[in-house]
Amino acid sequence: MEPRRVVDEMLARDKFSEWMGLELLELKAGYVRLQAVIRPEMMNGIGTLHGGVTFAMADSAFAFTCNMENSISVALDAHISFTKAGYVGDIFTIESKEINSTRKTGLYEVRITNQHQELVAVFKGTCYRVGKTLINES
Amino acid sequence: MEPRRVVDEMLARDKFSEWMGLELLELKAGYVRLQAVIRPEMMNGIGTLHGGVTFAMADSAFAFTCNMENSISVALDAHISFTKAGYVGDIFTIESKEINSTRKTGLYEVRITNQHQELVAVFKGTCYRVGKTLINES
Amino acid sequence: MEPRRVVDEMLARDKFSEWMGLELLELKAGYVRLQAVIRPEMMNGIGTLHGGVTFAMADSAFAFTCNMENSISVALDAHISFTKAGYVGDIFTIESKEINSTRKTGLYEVRITNQHQELVAVFKGTCYRVGKTLINES
Amino acid sequence: MEPRRVVDEMLARDKFSEWMGLELLELKAGYVRLQAVIRPEMMNGIGTLHGGVTFAMADSAFAFTCNMENSISVALDAHISFTKAGYVGDIFTIESKEINSTRKTGLYEVRITNQHQELVAVFKGTCYRVGKTLINES
Repeated sequence: MEPRRVVDEMLARDKFSEWMGLELLELKAGYVRLQAVIRPEMMNGIGTLHGGVTFAMADSAFAFTCNMENSISVALDAHISFTKAGYVGDIFTIESKEINSTRKTGLYEVRITNQHQELVAVFKGTCYRVGKTLINES
Repeated sequence: MEPRRVVDEMLARDKFSEWMGLELLELKAGYVRLQAVIRPEMMNGIGTLHGGVTFAMADSAFAFTCNMENSISVALDAHISFTKAGYVGDIFTIESKEINSTRKTGLYEVRITNQHQELVAVFKGTCYRVGKTLINES
Repeated sequence: MEPRRVVDEMLARDKFSEWMGLELLELKAGYVRLQAVIRPEMMNGIGTLHGGVTFAMADSAFAFTCNMENSISVALDAHISFTKAGYVGDIFTIESKEINSTRKTGLYEVRITNQHQELVAVFKGTCYRVGKTLINES
Repeated sequence: MEPRRVVDEMLARDKFSEWMGLELLELKAGYVRLQAVIRPEMMNGIGTLHGGVTFAMADSAFAFTCNMENSISVALDAHISFTKAGYVGDIFTIESKEINSTRKTGLYEVRITNQHQELVAVFKGTCYRVGKTLINES
């Protein structure tokens, strides 16, 4: 199955990515680039973007990249470093790429930048491939 | 200022924690316990709870714990391990506790369990204290 | 095979753990406690214990714990937080325990304390079980 | 003070980096490249390079990079992903670069490759700058 079709179906089913307004800009083997606009309902208690939303954008990009070969992969763990605060109206670019992939596990890195090309966060995720097909051929 | 008042004000201002339905169950020095119910709009593309929402619940608990002394603390980085999938209707308990705190930095651990007392995720966050007051005495 | 025998054989073969002077104090299901004395050749360029040695002590404890069932497990990734510097003559206690274990992966936490019961480091490691026996029954 | 002189002095004082045989190949602003040869006494209990030694090589590169401006920086935490095993005789190249730096904190990434240009490990470290000079002008 085409990686593009797998990711399109994942996005169509993914309620929280829809809430975040994630838009797919580019996809190739082992690589995904997304975009999202920061909204008021994403803010935390000190007036900046909630770190959980930043993480979730990276986590979606990670999931799309590690599942695009149509083999269900679940996150074992992830690490994120925050380098810049986000604000309402910011436009984030979320780029994910494969660092390493074996039959059963994979390592992916995601970088998030804002509309000023400033680095907002760096994310690394490790997944385990459960050995099942994500989307069944019909 | 009372830690309880600081956290109540943070929660009142925190739009994304409100979206997640986070409820404060217990608060003491260096410790916070929250609860949330998993809803359909929190799901990902493979029918389980989006890992970003799980992370965000832990991140809020972390933020409340490291800011409760009314000194603004920002997350430098965080690490999360996922041990169990979440589903619609699950009730999560989110417990955060201080592991280490210095004048300028802090380390916090958060554990999330579901209604069956199963561990869902373990989170560790490191913060930097910027040296400003979160809520001004009035 | 007895977990104790597996760990004894691992220790006997482990050249770097020998260099570190790791001593096994206690072992039970999903748990290992080790001890080591900090020496001058373990110091870094600013006169404190090299963080890599601290990590390596935790990593050995992690390896002993996740391999004790005689199923080869390799580290996928690990995270460490440093809370206190180490000095020559310090006596470290290294405690590792299983947080989660599945057929193919595992999550372990290690805490290191010094002779004053002060927390030196907290470590979390994720392993993948390759499906081979570590020590063959003879 | 010249970054090169700071790192040369750190290396000269660093007993454990000496034990590891770390050699400085290149240094420029926010960047350090080191090399080391894997020896039998660095092995673990399953016949491969001990993950703690891999981590320690990355940690040294991280320390040299975040201290080269002669401002003492201590590691708060670090995350490592292992992608390939190491063996006796391997020659590792350890490259560290600054990702983000503020007056008080910094984020660094280290990549380790072997003599076949295969990725062995990816490391991310966060430091806190304590506000003291590492080497006093004389």
